[in-house]
Formats: sequence, structure tokens, C-alpha cells
Amino acid sequence: MSRYDSRTTLFSQDGRLMQVEYAIKAVTAAAPCLAILAEDGVVFAAQKKLVSKLSDQRTSEKMYRIDDHIVCAVSGLTSDANLLIDEARTYSQRWLATYDELIPVETLVRYISDYKQNYTHHGGLRPFGVSFLFGGWDQRLGFQLYQTDPSGNYAAWVATSIGGSAPEIASAMKQYITSNAQRVTIDEAKKYAISALVKTTYIAKVSSEKIEVLTLTLSNKTKVTATYATAAEIDAIYETLA
Amino acid sequence: MSRYDSRTTLFSQDGRLMQVEYAIKAVTAAAPCLAILAEDGVVFAAQKKLVSKLSDQRTSEKMYRIDDHIVCAVSGLTSDANLLIDEARTYSQRWLATYDELIPVETLVRYISDYKQNYTHHGGLRPFGVSFLFGGWDQRLGFQLYQTDPSGNYAAWVATSIGGSAPEIASAMKQYITSNAQRVTIDEAKKYAISALVKTTYIAKVSSEKIEVLTLTLSNKTKVTATYATAAEIDAIYETLA
Amino acid sequence: MSRYDSRTTLFSQDGRLMQVEYAIKAVTAAAPCLAILAEDGVVFAAQKKLVSKLSDQRTSEKMYRIDDHIVCAVSGLTSDANLLIDEARTYSQRWLATYDELIPVETLVRYISDYKQNYTHHGGLRPFGVSFLFGGWDQRLGFQLYQTDPSGNYAAWVATSIGGSAPEIASAMKQYITSNAQRVTIDEAKKYAISALVKTTYIAKVSSEKIEVLTLTLSNKTKVTATYATAAEIDAIYETLA
Amino acid sequence: MSRYDSRTTLFSQDGRLMQVEYAIKAVTAAAPCLAILAEDGVVFAAQKKLVSKLSDQRTSEKMYRIDDHIVCAVSGLTSDANLLIDEARTYSQRWLATYDELIPVETLVRYISDYKQNYTHHGGLRPFGVSFLFGGWDQRLGFQLYQTDPSGNYAAWVATSIGGSAPEIASAMKQYITSNAQRVTIDEAKKYAISALVKTTYIAKVSSEKIEVLTLTLSNKTKVTATYATAAEIDAIYETLA
Amino acid sequence: MSRYDSRTTLFSQDGRLMQVEYAIKAVTAAAPCLAILAEDGVVFAAQKKLVSKLSDQRTSEKMYRIDDHIVCAVSGLTSDANLLIDEARTYSQRWLATYDELIPVETLVRYISDYKQNYTHHGGLRPFGVSFLFGGWDQRLGFQLYQTDPSGNYAAWVATSIGGSAPEIASAMKQYITSNAQRVTIDEAKKYAISALVKTTYIAKVSSEKIEVLTLTLSNKTKVTATYATAAEIDAIYETLA
Amino acid sequence: MSRYDSRTTLFSQDGRLMQVEYAIKAVTAAAPCLAILAEDGVVFAAQKKLVSKLSDQRTSEKMYRIDDHIVCAVSGLTSDANLLIDEARTYSQRWLATYDELIPVETLVRYISDYKQNYTHHGGLRPFGVSFLFGGWDQRLGFQLYQTDPSGNYAAWVATSIGGSAPEIASAMKQYITSNAQRVTIDEAKKYAISALVKTTYIAKVSSEKIEVLTLTLSNKTKVTATYATAAEIDAIYETLA
Amino acid sequence: MSRYDSRTTLFSQDGRLMQVEYAIKAVTAAAPCLAILAEDGVVFAAQKKLVSKLSDQRTSEKMYRIDDHIVCAVSGLTSDANLLIDEARTYSQRWLATYDELIPVETLVRYISDYKQNYTHHGGLRPFGVSFLFGGWDQRLGFQLYQTDPSGNYAAWVATSIGGSAPEIASAMKQYITSNAQRVTIDEAKKYAISALVKTTYIAKVSSEKIEVLTLTLSNKTKVTATYATAAEIDAIYETLA
Repeated sequence: MSRYDSRTTLFSQDGRLMQVEYAIKAVTAAAPCLAILAEDGVVFAAQKKLVSKLSDQRTSEKMYRIDDHIVCAVSGLTSDANLLIDEARTYSQRWLATYDELIPVETLVRYISDYKQNYTHHGGLRPFGVSFLFGGWDQRLGFQLYQTDPSGNYAAWVATSIGGSAPEIASAMKQYITSNAQRVTIDEAKKYAISALVKTTYIAKVSSEKIEVLTLTLSNKTKVTATYATAAEIDAIYETLA
Repeated sequence: MSRYDSRTTLFSQDGRLMQVEYAIKAVTAAAPCLAILAEDGVVFAAQKKLVSKLSDQRTSEKMYRIDDHIVCAVSGLTSDANLLIDEARTYSQRWLATYDELIPVETLVRYISDYKQNYTHHGGLRPFGVSFLFGGWDQRLGFQLYQTDPSGNYAAWVATSIGGSAPEIASAMKQYITSNAQRVTIDEAKKYAISALVKTTYIAKVSSEKIEVLTLTLSNKTKVTATYATAAEIDAIYETLA
Repeated sequence: MSRYDSRTTLFSQDGRLMQVEYAIKAVTAAAPCLAILAEDGVVFAAQKKLVSKLSDQRTSEKMYRIDDHIVCAVSGLTSDANLLIDEARTYSQRWLATYDELIPVETLVRYISDYKQNYTHHGGLRPFGVSFLFGGWDQRLGFQLYQTDPSGNYAAWVATSIGGSAPEIASAMKQYITSNAQRVTIDEAKKYAISALVKTTYIAKVSSEKIEVLTLTLSNKTKVTATYATAAEIDAIYETLA
Repeated sequence: MSRYDSRTTLFSQDGRLMQVEYAIKAVTAAAPCLAILAEDGVVFAAQKKLVSKLSDQRTSEKMYRIDDHIVCAVSGLTSDANLLIDEARTYSQRWLATYDELIPVETLVRYISDYKQNYTHHGGLRPFGVSFLFGGWDQRLGFQLYQTDPSGNYAAWVATSIGGSAPEIASAMKQYITSNAQRVTIDEAKKYAISALVKTTYIAKVSSEKIEVLTLTLSNKTKVTATYATAAEIDAIYETLA
Repeated sequence: MSRYDSRTTLFSQDGRLMQVEYAIKAVTAAAPCLAILAEDGVVFAAQKKLVSKLSDQRTSEKMYRIDDHIVCAVSGLTSDANLLIDEARTYSQRWLATYDELIPVETLVRYISDYKQNYTHHGGLRPFGVSFLFGGWDQRLGFQLYQTDPSGNYAAWVATSIGGSAPEIASAMKQYITSNAQRVTIDEAKKYAISALVKTTYIAKVSSEKIEVLTLTLSNKTKVTATYATAAEIDAIYETLA
Repeated sequence: MSRYDSRTTLFSQDGRLMQVEYAIKAVTAAAPCLAILAEDGVVFAAQKKLVSKLSDQRTSEKMYRIDDHIVCAVSGLTSDANLLIDEARTYSQRWLATYDELIPVETLVRYISDYKQNYTHHGGLRPFGVSFLFGGWDQRLGFQLYQTDPSGNYAAWVATSIGGSAPEIASAMKQYITSNAQRVTIDEAKKYAISALVKTTYIAKVSSEKIEVLTLTLSNKTKVTATYATAAEIDAIYETLA
Repeated sequence: MSRYDSRTTLFSQDGRLMQVEYAIKAVTAAAPCLAILAEDGVVFAAQKKLVSKLSDQRTSEKMYRIDDHIVCAVSGLTSDANLLIDEARTYSQRWLATYDELIPVETLVRYISDYKQNYTHHGGLRPFGVSFLFGGWDQRLGFQLYQTDPSGNYAAWVATSIGGSAPEIASAMKQYITSNAQRVTIDEAKKYAISALVKTTYIAKVSSEKIEVLTLTLSNKTKVTATYATAAEIDAIYETLA
């Protein structure tokens, strides 16, 4: 297999793109994120990297606001992610300036996915070593949740996870969400998210130092609000899990 | 043979383009689609990927509307397909804006095929790892059905299939369609499509969760309608096959 | 020899371009075409590929009209051919728009040949894997017949053939055409063409499903007409050969 | 592992970018810098390279003023650093000219980080072999301290170090700074900085010839001042450590 | 030696350009041409390739008119030659349009030689696999004869030859032309040319089907005429040689 | 180590750029230059290459005037140096034309250093195989002396040397200059320069044929004068050393 | 050493550019030229290549007039030389058109040398395989003589030689010219030039067929004249040497 893994422009004999698969390994090696599409919002949860006590905790590590109505969570190479986040923010603002309306969530996701695909198709490039969860709301489709991966694929999900332990986290979530038509409440979603993360990553003592939880909800029918769960709230939910 | 498979710009000693053949393997590894050109329409059927129950089933996985009068089905790398679908949609709208008429179906197919060919002919590129079925209607030629593959070849068909098990599906369809001059009815086409898919892919229990069926028909002589078969309709047809 | 076959920009020690020779192999592997320059026209004949009964027979497979007065037949990679045919059609129309006269046949052939040559001379490219027979008529030289190959060479012929079994077909034709000054009638040309194709390709039962025959003739001294032979006509000629 | 380390556009089988990791080695081989975010300023300290007595000591070796309110310290390839410092200064002035306000510290850090990321993602380039500590002040976030590395990653810190012995220096600092919420005074920061540097680098006799200490403080609430510690001051602090 | 023959941009250890030498092999493998500078004209002679009787003999194979006053003969890759001939014709017409006088012969030869040199000096290119004999007349220098080879060298000659058997042909011509100051008559030149070609290439029965002879002469002191020798004339000369 | 030395865009496993280190070897192989920053000027001295008596001694070999106030000395590949000297002269004049003042010495040195750095960072390039000593005077900093090397690094010095035997020359100079704060007189500098050069390069009989000495001094407070030492002056100093 | 000789952008471990050294071999393999700077002119002499008696001797082989006041002689690849001669002529005329004065000799030499250097420094190129002797006269410096080599180095000389046997020719000339301050007369220079060439190249019978001698002299104080020595003159000088 090794003869075919030196370029993005090289298929292996069985039609695989090895550099894309290796880029996915960069995602697998990173700390996980998950998201759940609830009835009336989207809940993101992520394990923080084990940062030093010298680190400045002012800023989130793994969640980024793209626009008023769209948030993303990231697993993989942070520097690659930063570039795509800048691109997403710029594209989103350009859309607003051109059409005077917020960009539809899937339109943005598709743009970023095509942007990633380009780096799997031309010489002198490597794939982006990063996966995203995009959550957002728009007038036509309400709340939505998408996952993109280094190949440039994307898909809509009710609940999904990226990064290390993603399959285990998905298994854990299937215990709570048994049908893709089911929509849980925001509170259930927070609880399920923290539970799935704790179970699969063996975090001894959960706290807001180790877990980030972000909730997208709608107020006044058109205004999307993104709220980080407080340390107290996380601890409280954790207590109920025991 | 292996010495000649590292670039799209390299013929093997017997005049083959190995990277194109490997790209076709990427198509063969994907879930199949088929289409049948009926008397008064085109019927597409596709096996859905075995998606998780956490997946959001809102959107079709393998069929895309290009323009009012053209639909395509896809097997292969989804991210490659997305790029070409965007290109096809843009080209189609540009034609409409320039000539004030819908693009002829074959003109669009030829454009996308030439676009693919370019990626098999120049350095620093790889072929697109995706095949398409294009179905559509235009004033001059009525309903038409085309298949394109990663080499940039395309051809017109009465019934054809792409993706995994494509030869077996073609064999199954030949039992129903015995001449290339024969045109079946839309209802027959749906039945034959589901039958061919079921027989060859060993789907235990057919339902709209596992199979997608899309029908292109004409209303008011110039208006093309694309309709997904309902779960009930698919189940009913499946019953008649037993 | 193998050290010199990895690029179009690499001569072998004995001054050969191996990638061009391999591209010619792609032509040799394809179904054959032939053409005969008659007194008052040009006759093309081609073996159809053994297509499935599911194939839509509406369109010719191997012959293409370039302009009102020029037709070509193709052996080799169809997707490569499509690109060059588009180029030829565009160049031909540009000539008409610029000079208000039909392009001379050799001018077009030379343009396409130089276009092919370019792909044998620069890095990051591969030769076109396709040969053409161009037949046409112009005021200065009357009916003409040219053959081009992947190297970008072209030459004028009284009767010639490309694709698989081309040498055998040429031998068969030499039995009918014994001098390059000889011009046969259109009817003789059709008969000789079908005979040469049948003898060399071992087609068991000839019919219009397996053979295409196209005739270029002149009406009103300046109007070129291209006519496909009907299935009945082909069968009748075939009868006379037995 | 060695097969995957020849280009920035090549992932290893486990998703690593070896050239980026080797570039980090260039940083590790360089003399260290550290910085501490104090209550009311930022303190930088660096070990000078062991320069000849023939060297002209007029200019700092490892600390550079980017703008009135931003300073950086450097470990790694000096020539690579010079280029990025020029880029940072230009970008900062362009921001001032465009928006008539000082550039926010993180905006500049993000720009330089994205600039570095680009050199890890495209062919024909190598990563920048240099890490930076950026310290600065702006209206919205007050004093801030960031670290960037050759991959294009950046993060905010309360106290951090780059270059050789960085992990040992970080350990030493953790003895003084026990929580990321803690902010020490400028005077404490100076003392801790010199102590951490002396302990880990085994500098026999500390003096301003061997150590540079730079302090960013605020006067008149909006004016940032950068002051080098005098030799006397450094010696005095060193005395207190014994 | 083989390590140095993969690119035009690579000198071998003894300062040779192997790809240029291999391109010269492509010339050596082709049928020969010769030319003789006579008192009042230039005579070209060439062995035709052993073409099929199906070939259309309407056009010369190896001699091309560049402009009213310049003719060239070609040995090597025909498709490469066609490109350079087009370039020479265009350059010649551009000169005429710019300066309102015929291009001096050496100016054109130098232009084509520099054009060839470029393909021996830059990456991503290969040398032109073709040599030329340029004959022509201009006001300043009268009739002239030049030879160019794949390296981009050119030189003026009284009698010279390119292609296969060139050294033998040169030897044969030295029997007739014993000094470079000597100019033979046109009739002698024709006889010597045919004799040299026949002796060295072992053509059993010479005729205009196997040999082309072209003569450049001057009428009215400024009008250059190019005349192909008739079959009868060639046969007559051949008779005198026996 | 050898696997990592084929490109400027390739770090070795321990973070070194081998091509830059090899370029430094090209400097080490060249004849040495030295310079000393005196109280009121700069003194350059260089060993001339052992040139033939057929060489035209009209021009200096190793010292170049960049502008009225800046001089440089060179060790390494002369052709590489010429290019950078042209670049420096042009940049210097552009500065004068733009700002109507002489370019500050360090600004020019930084520009040339960044120019060099670029050739260590991008594909398809090699480092410049040349080091420079730049000496000059400007209003703000008075007389200054800088050294740049192939990596694009530069630094300010009181006395320094480049080329072969540079470490030995530096050792010799340290006997005369014992602190970086010390500034010798111009006459001392000349003597020390010649002494250091003679001791380390074993020049049997020193004369102006073997050594060049150039002095930058200031007249009228703003006018910089560059004077070559005469043969007599060099011999006189040499006498005093014995 | 061989690992480092495949590109102009690759230093060997000891800082050499092997492709430049190989290009110098191409010069060494060519027939020699020499030149002597006399009191009142420059004398060039060159051994002609052993050309066939069929060669047209109308044009010089190795000496070219660049402008009214500059001549050059060439050893190496003629096709490379032609390109640089065209470049030199164009640059010289551009200078005249821009400044309305003849280009200074060294300015032209420097331009051509920088042009050569560029081909030793960037990827996708090879060095020019040619050395030049440039002789000329200008108002400021009078008669001058320069030599350039494939690396882009150039230097001024009183007497020098390029091509095969250059060291032996230089030795021979040193017997006549014993100091670089010495200027011989034009007549002495001619005699010494022929003598040096004859001694070192073992030309049995010297004549104008085997040796070219060109003299640059000044008439009317500003008009430079270039004169080829006649066969008689060369023979006469040769007689005096015996």
C-alpha cells in the first residue's frame, strides 16, 4: 500500500487516497468533540486538551463562532482549523453583504467542504488535517448539525462526534437517541453529551476545566444565542450521572 | 504494471492509464445506482449507504437536481461528486442566462465529461473518483439517460448502472429489457429497478430507509417533475416481487 | 528501454518517445475505422464496439461531423477524442467567422495535429491516445482524406485505416485499390470498405448494428452531404460479398 | 517514519507532519526565552547567545518591538524570524492606517500564525523554524501573552517559554505561579523570570551580558512602555536569588 | 553516462547534454535529405519514405516553402517539424509586414535555431527531434544554404546532408565538390545530388516515386522560383549515372 | 544526514538546513576578508586571490562601494555576490529617490539579509553562496559594521572576518581588541587588520599585490570617504610588524 | 560527489555547484580562443574547428561583433552562445537608445554575467555551457579585455584564453607578457597570439583556414575598427615564428 501514499493526486490500486486517510488519522489523534441536534437547539461538548496550569483559560479551545447563527467545533490540527475558520467567517460575511440575509447553514458547510476537497485533488497540496461539527439555524430548515471530514465529505446528523474515541462516543449516544427522527430537549442533550464524553474518555473528575459545553438556542424566533455552560452547571449535571 | 501507475500523464506499455483505472475502483467500491429510460420518463434507484440511526435523513444521499429538467445519481467519492455537481449547476444556469433556454441534456453531460477528461490529461491532478447517471428531458430529444465515468467517457443508455455490483445489476435488467429499442412504462421501470437492486445487493428487508427511488416525468408537455417514491410505494412494489 | 518511458519530455537513447508509442497502443487496442477517397466523395466505415443491448443506439459511436464539409472517424480513447472534436468544431467556426469561407480541410487537420504535437513536447502532459480520419471537401483540392496519429503526424491517403487490425485492413484494401492515382466510385468504395472490415475482423453476421458506413458526397457542386448507410443497404452489400 | 518526512505536503501514516516536527527541533536547539503575564504588564527574559567579545552589543538579540503596544521574543532561526517580524510590523501599520486604531494583540498573533501555517501546507515551501512569544496590551483585553510555534498553532498563556530547556523552565515557573488565574506583580515576575532562567540553564555568573530582561508596562492608561532592565537591576535581582 | 540523460537541464560529467544527443538520434533514424549550393541556385534532394501505394502523393513529404524566397527540407520527427515550419512561416510574414522587405535568410535561420535552443535549456521541455536544411536567396548575400540541428546550432554550407546516412552522402558529394569556394551549375548539382543519394541509400530503381528533387533559381534578378523535378527528368539523370 | 540535504525546503531530523550549511562551505573555501570598527571609521582588509600576472589589476576584487556612505567586502561565489551588490545598489538609490536621504546602514543590511533568506525557504532555489561585511555611516548611529551569511542572518560587530581562516583571524584580532566597547584609532585598525591577516594566512611577502586595505572615514561631518591604502603604506605597516 | 550533481540548485557537501563545473567542461571540450590587450587595441585569435571542405567559409565561427565598439570570442556550445550574443546586442542597442551613448564595456560584461548567474541559481534551468572573451573600448577606460565563464564570474585581463588547452596557452603567453602592467604593441600581440596558439595546439600548417585573427583598433580617437587578419598576414607572421 505504501507506494501510493505520497501524494494527494495518487489513487492506490483499490481506489483509495492514502494521504486523505492519513489526514483522518490526525483527527483521530486529537481530543474529541460531539454535538446533538435537540428540538430547539444544538448542544456541543468537547474534552479540553490537558493544558498546563500556566495556560490562559480566557479563550475556548475547540469551539468557534462563525457568524451570529453558526458555531463550529473542531478536532485535528489547530493551525489548519484556524485557516478554515477565517475562510468560513469571511465567506459568511460576504454572503451577508451580497444578499442581505444570513447564509444558509448548509451553503456554508458545502463551501468549506469544497474548499477542503480542493486540497485532496491537486498536486503540491496536502489535505486539511481537521474535522468540523457545524451547528446552526436558518429560516428554511431550522436547527441543523453537519459534520465535515478531511476528504471534503459532509453529512447531516442528529448526533455525531469527531476526534479520538468518536466511534465509542457514537455508541454511547445511541443509547439515548434511538431513532434519527427523535429530537431530545436541550437539557437532555446536555446531559447525554456530558455522559457520552465522560464514559468514553475516562475523565476522572469532570469540571469546566476539562469539558466545554456550548448551547445554541433561539430567542424571539430569529435570534440565535450561543451560551457556554458554567462550571457549576457542568458539575451539577455530572452529579446526576453518578 | 506498477511502474506506470503514478501519474495521470503516464501511459502504461500497453496504452492504459492506470490512475484512471484505479479511480474507477473508487466507483466500484461505492454503493450502486441504476436508471431506466421509460416511455415517458426516467426512473433512478439507489441503495442507500448503511447509515447510522444518528444520521439526519432529511436529504437524499445519492441523487441531485441539476436544473429543472435534469437530475443525476452518483456513485464514488462524494466530495469529488459535490464539486462536479456545483459545476454542472453553474454551467446550466449560465446557459439559461446566455441563451434564454434550458440547456440540452447532452450538452451538459458533454461539458461535465470534458471537465473530467482534463483531470486525466495534465500533471499535478488526479481523475475524479466518481461516475454519474444523468437523466433529463429536452425539446429536441425528449427523455434521455447518460452515464459518465472517471475517464471522461460518456454514452447514452436505455438502462444502466454504476457503482458496486453494476455488472450484476445490468444482467438483472436485461431480463426485463430485451432490446435497446424497447421503452417500458414508468410503473414497469420502477418495479424492474427495485427488483434488479434487491436481487443483486441482497438487501434483506427493503424499505425507503435502504432504497431511494426517483422518477422524472413530464407534465403539460414542457414541465419536468422529479418525484421521490414514498416508503409505502416502495414497500408495495417490494411485496409484488416476492 | 524502460528508463526512458516516464515522460513526454524524455527521448530514449535511440531517439524514440516511448510515451507517444504507448499512446499509439491505446489506438491499436480500439475498434477499427477505415476510409476510402472515391472519385466523387469519401466513404467511412467502422466496426461498432460490442455494446450492450441496453445501450441507446441513437447516436453514432465513432463518426462526428466537424463542419458542413468535414467529417471525422475516431479510434482510441473516446474522452480524449471528444476534447479534440470540440476543439476542431470551434476552430472551424472561428475560421468561418473570420474569413467568411469554409476552412480548408488540410488547414483544420494541421491545426489539430499541431495541437496533438504540443502534448508530446512539454512536461506535465501526456499525448492524446487517439487517431483520426478526417474526410472533407474544399474548393481548391476537392475531396480529401487525412489520417492523424498521437504523435501529431498527419498524411494524406487514398485509403487508410486506424485502430485494431489496421495493417490487415490496409492489406485487404490494396487488393481493390492498386495505385494511389486510382479513384473508385462511391458504390465501389462502400463495397470495398465493408469487405475489408468483414474479412479482417471476423464479424460473423454483418448488420447495421455492428458496422457503421458514412458517405460524404457533393450536391449542387458546393454542398457537401453526409449520409449514413441504412441497415438494408449494408445487408444488401454484404450479400454481394458472399 | 523516514519515508514521510520529505515534504510539508506529506502526512505520515499516523497523521503527523514530520517536516513541521523537524522545524520545531530548530527551535529547541536555540537559546531560550520566557515571558510572564503580570498584573499590570508583561515581563520577557532571554538568555543571550554566547557572543564573542568582538560583537557589537548595541542591539538586542532576541526581543523586537512590533508596534507601540506589542513586543515579541524569538527562539529559532534568526533569518526566518526577521522575515516574520517585518511582516508583523507591516501588517500592524497597515491596520493602523486602515482603521485608525492599534491592532488588537490577538489579531496580529493570528495573522502571523496563519502566515506560518501556509508554509506547512503547500509544496515548494518549508515551515518557518522559529517560535515567538508575543506580549502586548489592547483596550479590550488588557495585557496578553501568546506563544506561536512552527506549525502555525498559537495559544494564550500566563507564563510560558520557547527554545532550548523550555519544559524545564516551565517547571521552574510553576513553583511560583500555581494557578492560571493568578497574576503576579511586575517585580515578582522579573524575579521569577531570572530565577527560572538561571536554574535551568546553569549560567554561572548572571549579568546583563548574558541575560536580557524586558518589561511592558502601561502609563497614562493607554501608553505602553517597553523598558530593558539595566545590568545593575539584573545583578541586584540575582543577588536576592542566592 | 545514463545518470545524466533524463533532462535537458542536466549536463553530464564531461559537459554533454545527453537528451540533445538522443534527439539527434531521432534525426539519424529518418530518411535523408541533401542540398547543394550552386552558382545560381540551390538544389535539394530527398529520399521519400517507403510509403504505401494507398498514400495520396499530392503533397511533398520532406520539403516545405517557408516564404517566396526560402525553402526548407526536413529529417526527423515530422510533427516537430510542422510546428517549426509554422513558426518560420509566421515569423517570415511578420518580418515582411513590419519592414516591408523579405526576411534575410540567415535571420530566419537564426530565429529558428534560437527557438530550438530554448527547448534544450529549460525544465519541462525536450529538444526538437528534427534537423533542417534551409535554402534561400536575399539581396545582400545571394543564394545561401544552412543546416540546423536539434541543439540549436546552425552553419552555412556549400553542400550538406541530414538524416540517415548523412556522413556517407557527404563523402559522396566531396568527390564532386572539392573546395568550399567551388560553385557547380544547377544541372551539375542535380546530377551530383541524385548520384550521392542513390549510391548511399541503395535505391534499386530510382524514380520520382522514391526521390524528390527541388530547385531554387532566380528569374528577373529578384524573383525566386522553386521547381520540382519531373519524374522524366529524374529518370533521365539516373540514366546518365549508370 | 545525507537524506536531508537535497533541498532548501527540507529540514533534517535535528532541525538543520543542510543546503544552507553547504553554502557556508562555499564561503569558507574563499579567500578571507576582515573589518574593524574604529573610533572614527571602518577599516577593511582582504587577501587577494593568487591571480595570474596576466590579470588586469585595475579593479578591486573583493570590495565594492554600494553607495556614498556604504562599502562591502565579499567572500564566496563572486557571481552570486555580483547579483546581490547590484540589488543593494539599486535598493539604496531607490531609497534616496523616495525619501531624499541616504539609506540607514542597517536598513540596507536587513534588506539584503531578507533577500538571502528567501533563497533558503522556497523550492527551486538554492542559498546564495556568499557572505558580506557591510561597513557604513549614518546620522543616527555613526559608523557601523555588519556581517551577513548565506542563511540570511546578520549581526553587528566591532571586528569580524569572513571566508577561509575566519576563526583564526578573529582570534588574532582579540589580542588587539579586548572588549566590545573598545574603539581603536584608524591607524591602529589598519595595523591590526594587516597583522591579523598576515599571521593567519602565512603570506610570505606582504604587498599591495597580495593585500587590499580600504578605509572609510568622515570629512566635514557628513561626507564619507573611502580610500584604498597605497602599496607603500601597506609595506610600511608590514615593516612595523616584523 | 555524484549525489549532488543533478541540479543547479544543489550545493555539494563542500559547497560546490557540480552542474556549473560540468558546464565548464563543455567549454574545455571546445576549440580555444585567446585575446591580448595591447597598448592601442585588442587582438583576438582562435583555432577554427576542423570543418569540412563543404562548409561555407563566408562567416566567422568564433568571433562576433556586439556593437561598434565591442567584440567577443566564444568557446563552448554555439547554440548557447548565440542566445547570449543576441541578448548582448539587444542590451547594447537599448542602452544607446536610452542614454544616447555607447554602453561602457564592463557594464555590458556585467549584464551578461548576471544573466548567466541566473541560470546557476534557479530550478528548471541549466548553466550556459559557454565562456566569452569580451574586448572593447570606451571613453572612460580605453581598451579593455574581460573573460566570463559559465558560473557568471567575470574578470579583467591583460591576456587570457578560454576553451581547450587554455592553461597551456596562458603559460605560453606569460613568456611574452611578464607583468600585468605591461602593454605590448598590436603587432607584437598578433605575433604572440599566433605563437601561443600554434605551440599549444600542434597545428601542423598554420593558415587562415585554421586560425582566425581579429584586431580592434582606434581611429580618429573615438571610432573603433575591427579587422580580420588576411591569410597572407597570418602566413607571414607564422614564417617569422619558425
